[in-house]
Amino acid sequence: MQIDILTLFPEMISGVFDSSILKRAHEKGKYQYNLVNFRDYTTNKHQKVDDYPYGGGAGMVLTPQPVFDAVEDVTRESGTKPRVVLMCPQGEPYSQTKAEELAAEEHLVIICGHYEGYDERIRKHLVTDEISIGDYVLTGGELGAMVIVDSVVRLLPDVLGNNASAPEDSFSTGLLEHPQYTRPADFRGMKVPDILMSGDHAKIASWRKKESLRRTYRRRKDLLGKLELSKEDKLLLEEIKREEV
Amino acid sequence: MQIDILTLFPEMISGVFDSSILKRAHEKGKYQYNLVNFRDYTTNKHQKVDDYPYGGGAGMVLTPQPVFDAVEDVTRESGTKPRVVLMCPQGEPYSQTKAEELAAEEHLVIICGHYEGYDERIRKHLVTDEISIGDYVLTGGELGAMVIVDSVVRLLPDVLGNNASAPEDSFSTGLLEHPQYTRPADFRGMKVPDILMSGDHAKIASWRKKESLRRTYRRRKDLLGKLELSKEDKLLLEEIKREEV
Repeated sequence: MQIDILTLFPEMISGVFDSSILKRAHEKGKYQYNLVNFRDYTTNKHQKVDDYPYGGGAGMVLTPQPVFDAVEDVTRESGTKPRVVLMCPQGEPYSQTKAEELAAEEHLVIICGHYEGYDERIRKHLVTDEISIGDYVLTGGELGAMVIVDSVVRLLPDVLGNNASAPEDSFSTGLLEHPQYTRPADFRGMKVPDILMSGDHAKIASWRKKESLRRTYRRRKDLLGKLELSKEDKLLLEEIKREEV
Repeated sequence: MQIDILTLFPEMISGVFDSSILKRAHEKGKYQYNLVNFRDYTTNKHQKVDDYPYGGGAGMVLTPQPVFDAVEDVTRESGTKPRVVLMCPQGEPYSQTKAEELAAEEHLVIICGHYEGYDERIRKHLVTDEISIGDYVLTGGELGAMVIVDSVVRLLPDVLGNNASAPEDSFSTGLLEHPQYTRPADFRGMKVPDILMSGDHAKIASWRKKESLRRTYRRRKDLLGKLELSKEDKLLLEEIKREEV
């Protein structure tokens, strides 16, 4: 996979690529990346990339020219039609489903603005996707781009070892993960539940399922609504509701 | 504000603090930060910070000892009761309201895991908040911690100039921002709507309100449900629904 990130702050991003799984996946050739400062593409003699909005108002707006030219340059050699993603608060809320969709692409281009808005012609005629990582205000699209890269690269074949893949399995059930405990069995008087040390695997599995359902019921009822629960899960959920009153 | 981030990958984070608004706010003394590798706190002779889960299963679990000791160390001198935030998929979904709440604190401690789960005793007895930045799987909590720092620091007094504060104003209306255009008026045949160059400020304001409603209606009906719409907004929305059929 080829990933191009268009940003005015490449130095903000590079540390993330130099760490942990992203670094190892890059060294193993699982993906290539390219940080492109699109200021280098401006034909404006002052190297300006933004300008005042038509119709007035506060804030600046990124002009189309450097963004179009930079995207065209990085996609010129691309054999396939690249996905061009715009990071913005108006975008589709990012999800694991979207990560899986992007992980199937051969070429991703991600455009990050910084403070400024985007000229609408970028949205209408250049990008294939507009994505928001959440309903909170960030200084720019860079953190969002890193979130996309991290969530996508870990889905590429042979990137994760078995140990690291567990949290994803948990997520893919649609429920929040049950409580986990490790050694010591007694830490400053705080103890591990007896059942987890009982060696009774069927009981442990049932306890975990119930606590997973309980945590989701307490914290994220919205997720429960999206699930097809089994008959056993429904019975557990009824128990939980009685216990939580 | 004092921000302590507990992480096994401090190098992943430092680039973000060295850029843009976070860098300038730090230079102006608006906040202090400290990247703490909690592996340095382990009393385990092999410097291990994780271990197998009680009850079996894939994946590793962060042991309580180094995390408790690191948090206690960084909060020892704190005059106020610090907020101790755990980044995790099971946490409360992060929002602008939560960012505003955290921005009022004097001391934030943010704990990032990496692949591993957390021993439940960390959740129950050490942290004040569990936060998730979205329903997607990341390699660790570091990107989430950066999202929190960026969104919180920009809310601190005197951090943003006027130019940069505009997107936030837009967000705070609860609607997605209307389309923006800047020069040139004609870019490769793609033109700016006439109304934005008409100089008629009342008409421009009304067009923007309508397009903002339209974008929210098309993309994020969930946001519309949370708003108290004015009588004028409701009429505009009726118009939009007829136009969008």
